Amino acid sequence: MEYLEDHERRELWDTIQDALFNDQIDQFRAEFLEMHPYDQAKIFEEQTQDVRMQIYTYLSPDEIAEVMEHIDVDDIEEYFTEMDPRFAAQILAEISTDDAADILNELDKNQVASFLTIMDKESASDIKELLYYEEKTAGSIMTTEFVVIRANQTVREAMLHLKREAPDAETIYYVFVIDEDKHLVGVISLRDLIIAEEDWYISEVMSDRVVSVQVGEDQEDVAQLMRDYDFLALPVVDFQNHMLGIITVDDIMDVMEEEASDDYSKLAGVSDLDRPDENAFAAAKKRLPWLVILLFLGMMTASLIGRFEETLNQVAILAVFIPLIAGMAGNTGTQALAVAVRGLATGEHEKEGILKLVFREAGTGLITGLTCGVLVTFIVYFWQGDYYLGLLVGISIMSTLIVATLAGALVPLLMHKLNVDPAVASGPFITTINDIISILIYFGMATTFLRLHLLIS
Amino acid sequence: MEYLEDHERRELWDTIQDALFNDQIDQFRAEFLEMHPYDQAKIFEEQTQDVRMQIYTYLSPDEIAEVMEHIDVDDIEEYFTEMDPRFAAQILAEISTDDAADILNELDKNQVASFLTIMDKESASDIKELLYYEEKTAGSIMTTEFVVIRANQTVREAMLHLKREAPDAETIYYVFVIDEDKHLVGVISLRDLIIAEEDWYISEVMSDRVVSVQVGEDQEDVAQLMRDYDFLALPVVDFQNHMLGIITVDDIMDVMEEEASDDYSKLAGVSDLDRPDENAFAAAKKRLPWLVILLFLGMMTASLIGRFEETLNQVAILAVFIPLIAGMAGNTGTQALAVAVRGLATGEHEKEGILKLVFREAGTGLITGLTCGVLVTFIVYFWQGDYYLGLLVGISIMSTLIVATLAGALVPLLMHKLNVDPAVASGPFITTINDIISILIYFGMATTFLRLHLLIS
Repeated sequence: MEYLEDHERRELWDTIQDALFNDQIDQFRAEFLEMHPYDQAKIFEEQTQDVRMQIYTYLSPDEIAEVMEHIDVDDIEEYFTEMDPRFAAQILAEISTDDAADILNELDKNQVASFLTIMDKESASDIKELLYYEEKTAGSIMTTEFVVIRANQTVREAMLHLKREAPDAETIYYVFVIDEDKHLVGVISLRDLIIAEEDWYISEVMSDRVVSVQVGEDQEDVAQLMRDYDFLALPVVDFQNHMLGIITVDDIMDVMEEEASDDYSKLAGVSDLDRPDENAFAAAKKRLPWLVILLFLGMMTASLIGRFEETLNQVAILAVFIPLIAGMAGNTGTQALAVAVRGLATGEHEKEGILKLVFREAGTGLITGLTCGVLVTFIVYFWQGDYYLGLLVGISIMSTLIVATLAGALVPLLMHKLNVDPAVASGPFITTINDIISILIYFGMATTFLRLHLLIS
Repeated sequence: MEYLEDHERRELWDTIQDALFNDQIDQFRAEFLEMHPYDQAKIFEEQTQDVRMQIYTYLSPDEIAEVMEHIDVDDIEEYFTEMDPRFAAQILAEISTDDAADILNELDKNQVASFLTIMDKESASDIKELLYYEEKTAGSIMTTEFVVIRANQTVREAMLHLKREAPDAETIYYVFVIDEDKHLVGVISLRDLIIAEEDWYISEVMSDRVVSVQVGEDQEDVAQLMRDYDFLALPVVDFQNHMLGIITVDDIMDVMEEEASDDYSKLAGVSDLDRPDENAFAAAKKRLPWLVILLFLGMMTASLIGRFEETLNQVAILAVFIPLIAGMAGNTGTQALAVAVRGLATGEHEKEGILKLVFREAGTGLITGLTCGVLVTFIVYFWQGDYYLGLLVGISIMSTLIVATLAGALVPLLMHKLNVDPAVASGPFITTINDIISILIYFGMATTFLRLHLLIS
């Protein structure tokens, strides 16, 4: 079978709907539970509240838990609010602890407190522990459902232990080895465990060079590590090397998607990308704050040009090149910004050294500035027949490109130094800053040219 | 042990270097092979050619193969060219087939042909098959080293088979089930296999709802699928459902990184993000083509304004608002572009319907346009004291935002329809297009106002 296309899901749903309509609980369960939880979630999300209430009575808490794990956390509040609180608490206890903590972070505090009170003590304390970790750290994405074995067990004992623990563990493909004080001392893959002789000791077959991450580590760094080393799971430890949890590759894929989409939307100047089910009002609400800020920055540019009204009155042709110069400043700034933000995100700039980056960007600006400047000088000269005008525009473009390239690279670097997320220096923001820089250079130079009586009005 | 920080790798390297220097092959092997292949690769890449040549003689082809799998394919040509061709062919035969095909794609055709001739026949034919698939499809990222079992085997037989195959297979955590004609008929996770009773038949414990992808499917869609369903491996089939290979999650993480960085760099108008070891010339070479194209587009904008020189001569103050209006058009266009490109990438727009998107963007443009337009009208009126000027700038901003928002959304959609990658419509490109649109609206309106004698010069 291929994975379900939308229309297949809808056809399947028709038969399931009949079962619901006729109260055929067995048939509903047979059809619904046969699907992958992702498809169950897609179908569940399309239902009205009435149908959802019926589904809650047809499925057990752990069956609903599987569905909930595949629903976007942003959409989940509604479902947990409409359910019977006891039932909701049971579901939360069944969901893997990292997802449960994510869901609770979306609900209001009173609701969270009441769910944690109703829930069985063990699940509640596991989840509470995760709620405590800061967002976007290793601690916030790890799960506490992992299997550990001891170094002095035999392979046979370890396999028996695994068979028992397998149904509840988030993954059993990497098994971590701890000592009596719960210190992480080794790791063995299930693959190596299967190949090993049954009466060997774990200490003989495990690798003691186990890679781990600190609980406070940034999730983006964890993702980078997982990708570099091709791990399926990473152990999370505290500063004394006690094992606290594991992070699995499926969570890391979500982190990668989230971080990529975050960087992308910031470069475009949208606080958050719209979702397809949103209407124009919701979309406008997300974009307007940026546009209004940029509008005021743009008014600053306008008032700046206003100061050169005298110059403009004398040589109206100057206005013709404003969008060209401002536009080129924006373009080169965005390029430099993108390179700097990605370099910071992947940690490459730390290896390289900031000073080296600044020199390189200055050099890049000089080369691109010279090329474009010379090109423009000739084009303007041949078009307008005015040698000085050509020179003015050409030199302006050249200086603008050098300064704007540096600004594009330096602003995110400065933000990084100040511990602000460099991606906040979005494309439109840098573009507008560079507009101002370019206008100052262009009109400053034009006014000087005029004073020297070089420009004929 | 934590993963290796750069300085730790360097310290470790010092001891390894001593071993190399004193020709202590045993000590070199003991230290080097103890490391994770990713760290081996990082250290290997920092060496001079002389040291690399020595390392080739100290390690076996399959040990070097592990190192090569963790080196960026763009850097690898040099190494395969400096080696003895026989040794290189042996290494290629040991590397997993998908990575080997990636490497061969980087080498020149004569080299590829000679490697494939020297190599053992079986490896050569496996790799050749992969070279045949188009870039960025499921076929190009799959590996042919997978384990299959039969439905009529018992769990015990299957486990014995797995133990034998485990060392060479890319993954054994998902085991695929085929029938006599090699059709894919089921899947079972190693977890379920371990829990199952040893004398059960595979047909009783496998899932026959196996999700697979077609060999020609886009790699981005495969990544989406893997992320939605939380798979660790996906089977790749031809149109008759014969199993051809598998795609594992570590390859998908690379695809996700590649696609994200691709979208990001295109939004910023850089053909390819610079790498930290590049100098200013290399960086300028990547950015200049975009800048020169944008320069010519910018000259078009300039010549457009040139046509309104008469209007500008009469009302020089008009020039003051050019960057504001052009800038706002660029900003809103980039926002709409980003939303449309991401929506197309995730397939969300296909569910939603193009028409609905167009209506929504028109609505969003109307709301943001009205807000910014009214705001600007008042600001300009209070600043310049000219009611008609305020109205002119306000109406221009409003119309510009509506048209530019639509343009930002429609250009990528059109490109998608024409089967061009919508991300090619980069941010700077859309910004420049919208510059032109906004200038036309602004000066067109200003000229009309002038004809109606509304603007006092």
